[in-house]
Amino acid sequence: MAEKPIRFGIIGCADIARKLSRAITLAPNAELSAVASRSLDKASAFAKANNFPPSAKIYGSYEDLLDDPEIDAVYVPLPTSLHVKWACLVAQKKKHILLEKPVALKVAEFDKIVEACEANGVQIMDGTMWIHNPRTHKMKEFLNDKERFGELKNMHSCFTFAGDEDFLNNDIRVKSNLDALGALGDAGWYGIRSILWAVDYELPKTVTALPGPVLNEAGVILSCGAALHWEDGKVATFHCSFLAHLTMDITAIGTAGTLHLNDFIIPYGEKEASFTTVSKSGFTDLVTGWVPLPSQHTVMTDLPQEACMVTEFARLVGNIKANGAKPDPKWPSISRKTQLILDAVTTSIAQGSKPVEL
Amino acid sequence: MAEKPIRFGIIGCADIARKLSRAITLAPNAELSAVASRSLDKASAFAKANNFPPSAKIYGSYEDLLDDPEIDAVYVPLPTSLHVKWACLVAQKKKHILLEKPVALKVAEFDKIVEACEANGVQIMDGTMWIHNPRTHKMKEFLNDKERFGELKNMHSCFTFAGDEDFLNNDIRVKSNLDALGALGDAGWYGIRSILWAVDYELPKTVTALPGPVLNEAGVILSCGAALHWEDGKVATFHCSFLAHLTMDITAIGTAGTLHLNDFIIPYGEKEASFTTVSKSGFTDLVTGWVPLPSQHTVMTDLPQEACMVTEFARLVGNIKANGAKPDPKWPSISRKTQLILDAVTTSIAQGSKPVEL
Repeated sequence: MAEKPIRFGIIGCADIARKLSRAITLAPNAELSAVASRSLDKASAFAKANNFPPSAKIYGSYEDLLDDPEIDAVYVPLPTSLHVKWACLVAQKKKHILLEKPVALKVAEFDKIVEACEANGVQIMDGTMWIHNPRTHKMKEFLNDKERFGELKNMHSCFTFAGDEDFLNNDIRVKSNLDALGALGDAGWYGIRSILWAVDYELPKTVTALPGPVLNEAGVILSCGAALHWEDGKVATFHCSFLAHLTMDITAIGTAGTLHLNDFIIPYGEKEASFTTVSKSGFTDLVTGWVPLPSQHTVMTDLPQEACMVTEFARLVGNIKANGAKPDPKWPSISRKTQLILDAVTTSIAQGSKPVEL
Repeated sequence: MAEKPIRFGIIGCADIARKLSRAITLAPNAELSAVASRSLDKASAFAKANNFPPSAKIYGSYEDLLDDPEIDAVYVPLPTSLHVKWACLVAQKKKHILLEKPVALKVAEFDKIVEACEANGVQIMDGTMWIHNPRTHKMKEFLNDKERFGELKNMHSCFTFAGDEDFLNNDIRVKSNLDALGALGDAGWYGIRSILWAVDYELPKTVTALPGPVLNEAGVILSCGAALHWEDGKVATFHCSFLAHLTMDITAIGTAGTLHLNDFIIPYGEKEASFTTVSKSGFTDLVTGWVPLPSQHTVMTDLPQEACMVTEFARLVGNIKANGAKPDPKWPSISRKTQLILDAVTTSIAQGSKPVEL
């Protein structure tokens, strides 16, 4: 007996919402039910351009959408500075929240959102889509394998892309009143999440900004990095930037093996995604080569990763609706930890790269 | 008209000398002329095991080899603590020096070696073999290409391998009286060199050790990393370790392109070596993939990289011998810069990761 699909509303017509509209359409347990913009025309055009079904409702204000009793869940792609206001309102209207990252400007704001979610019994999940790619699960199996990978010792992650002049002058992600965390919030978020993902979300002991962060005139981060250090000796670094060519690497090094990939956030293609592992490798007798060589693993992606995310989110919402289940606390917990490290990085930058204890 | 090959002597029968013996045999302009050990039996066995020609001389002391007028150049694979004494002696005997890395325990020692070389008109080159791989030249063409790569903004390099219990207890590279720089000298040397290579050997403004260096009871570094920062905003990080699985990465990110490889020091195989580049890549309209995709470049290695190194070194020596040319100052200069950064890393570690200005 098929359950009824979860009815999604979207508030705000950001570029990223186009991709999420498609994902909601593709997810078998979700449907596009409404879109709201501050301009009715804009919402209407968005719905048309993004294949909303004829039944979908078009709203000229976010509030009106939130008041619609036929919406179960709301996707919030608004600028980060607006998250705390709107996500809290969504929760108060008893709607579940799929919230774009970074979830907030600082963890205290996110705590308000989580409080509102808990008070209203709604699920919250952030929009970190690659975590839901089937490849990610396969990679995690490798990292969890004591034989093939051992214990994580070192990790490096980066996400950079080269914003053009228009981006660097006008994009909301370089505006202090909209996305004040800049490259750290937009790109560094993923690197930080990838590190947390690899260590089973164990928070590091210290976070230390790397030298040379680049800020624009408004104080928004255009490029930075940090080193994370755990009590047991693990060390991880990440770098994020709007000023360097598109790159998205993970190198995770364990005692017995290494994981590599260079497209961890957006796989090179949507139908399949690969990663490389090598375990217990060493050199030939005269150090003329490696034995064994790395091997590449390819994982089919039947549903795009954003649709996997929507499916999982809708599954949780469905379970709450149909069975009275509790919201899954894992998702706000990992969002919060990611935000906590973002906060530590900004603090460390402000203090001239002093280590920040968590 | 073929010039006479450069006659090499080797002092010390370290494991690495096996590979270099083969390289000298393979280099068209070099020949294995002598080997010395403190034990005549050991030297004799080494010569036999490593295909020395019947004409090669076997010495039971390093001094005797250095006194042999029929030796042009000496390969010095001794523990680092012995470099300053023996390299200076080699120079004083007017023999050219191929010196294993790290070249010294600190730059002041290396300066003594360079002084001796200059006073005696001999060439010195360190044993960083991958710099001589034809792949390295191809990669450098990419990094120098303003269209395909642009300006370097960020780089990460690492070299780790997992020493077994015997290595961690007994190898000379963990002994404070032999190779006191440990993983920094043995593995970090390459990462530092790779960064200098990528920036055309421009020294950074600051060097800052990353948190979490691991030292053994004798104070020898088993694992560490550092961040390098240049005045113009470039940032590079490296990590080196004896405690994590075999990994040797370079990620170099420019404004217009990215270079990746995962076997920069010892290529996976000896006959050919690859690297990956991607330029001016971006996302498809709905951010479902990359356009263009990275491309892999494979470079044939007609001579093993160590033989390329010996060939280049012997060419310089031959030019000095035959044509009265001056030693090429590039090689001691890049050795010295690498050592200078090693020194800065150890200083920063000693000061609890304070930035060290160069």
